[in-house]
Amino acid sequence: MIRGRVSGKLWSSRRVPSLPVGALLEIEIDTGGKLIAFDPLGCAPGEAVLVVQGSVAASYFSGVSAPIDALVIGSIDEEKKSKT
Amino acid sequence: MIRGRVSGKLWSSRRVPSLPVGALLEIEIDTGGKLIAFDPLGCAPGEAVLVVQGSVAASYFSGVSAPIDALVIGSIDEEKKSKT
Amino acid sequence: MIRGRVSGKLWSSRRVPSLPVGALLEIEIDTGGKLIAFDPLGCAPGEAVLVVQGSVAASYFSGVSAPIDALVIGSIDEEKKSKT
Amino acid sequence: MIRGRVSGKLWSSRRVPSLPVGALLEIEIDTGGKLIAFDPLGCAPGEAVLVVQGSVAASYFSGVSAPIDALVIGSIDEEKKSKT
Amino acid sequence: MIRGRVSGKLWSSRRVPSLPVGALLEIEIDTGGKLIAFDPLGCAPGEAVLVVQGSVAASYFSGVSAPIDALVIGSIDEEKKSKT
Repeated sequence: MIRGRVSGKLWSSRRVPSLPVGALLEIEIDTGGKLIAFDPLGCAPGEAVLVVQGSVAASYFSGVSAPIDALVIGSIDEEKKSKT
Repeated sequence: MIRGRVSGKLWSSRRVPSLPVGALLEIEIDTGGKLIAFDPLGCAPGEAVLVVQGSVAASYFSGVSAPIDALVIGSIDEEKKSKT
Repeated sequence: MIRGRVSGKLWSSRRVPSLPVGALLEIEIDTGGKLIAFDPLGCAPGEAVLVVQGSVAASYFSGVSAPIDALVIGSIDEEKKSKT
Repeated sequence: MIRGRVSGKLWSSRRVPSLPVGALLEIEIDTGGKLIAFDPLGCAPGEAVLVVQGSVAASYFSGVSAPIDALVIGSIDEEKKSKT
Repeated sequence: MIRGRVSGKLWSSRRVPSLPVGALLEIEIDTGGKLIAFDPLGCAPGEAVLVVQGSVAASYFSGVSAPIDALVIGSIDEEKKSKT
């Protein structure tokens, strides 16, 4: 997985029907680069997140074949990390 | 997923039979680089698009085993984004 | 998918038994780098080709589990492209 | 697989329910870069580890569909390596 | 697939039980970088090899779910290549 930070949101009205309804966030990856991830958690701009990539991101959507290759799987606890 | 912009189209007459009939677009990726993606939406040159990569791109083609690893899954609403 | 050009061929006599018999081409990727792809089309040196990567490349070989992660899926029509 | 070294740990309280309970380690990759991997072995900070990436990392979790794309599969024997 | 050359070997005594028993080789990739691959062929240091990556590397191990994402699938015939 990779760490990143929410830097934006995007909308796509004209889309393939199998794209699940939900937030598509722009994530700035900590090690450089950007990607767009589906966010089932409702993360806010600036929030640190954990993103999974590849076919396992799609397997989150059970029963359907979702064309999703990046998924926010957690919000990173920033306070706890600095204490450790 | 990644953001990109349609920069061209390509044709391949001599191809494997399992390659689906449809548009093969050249996409300039926003963070650099280029790729070729299958486009089921009929996107135009210059249009901003959302592209999914890997085996989930192939799962869009139900019932067949398509050799596709990049798929345009949406046209990005550029006006809405600037308003947000 | 990615665009590339055939730059060589390689032979491997000592190989895993599940590697399919056929041409293994060295491809120079248009955006930089090289890879080795299985070619079911009989492409010639210098020919522009379209290459698919990842597990979908293996699914071309139906009924067997081929250890192939890159496959030439088409020869690119170079004349048509310049006319468009 | 890639070699890396454990450089930290992270916590995520707000997470998707399918994320398995267990350690999420930050790994510094030997050839550069960082990633977050699930660690079933209890590795310590500074330990050299072997990490597998992609969908096979998720297949470690049998019976469930875990959104994991990087898994620590072994601790590297550093003494033995230097002797060889 | 990618071309590389065997540059070392590693041992991991503390490992997940599903990691198959066999050689784990360090491979220097021809285009730069390094990776660790499972070697079922018994390749020697300095030998030129062909490596497959991703989930198809794991499918080599039939009947089990092996956490392997890189596999040596052939030793490259270096003399034949120079003659062609």
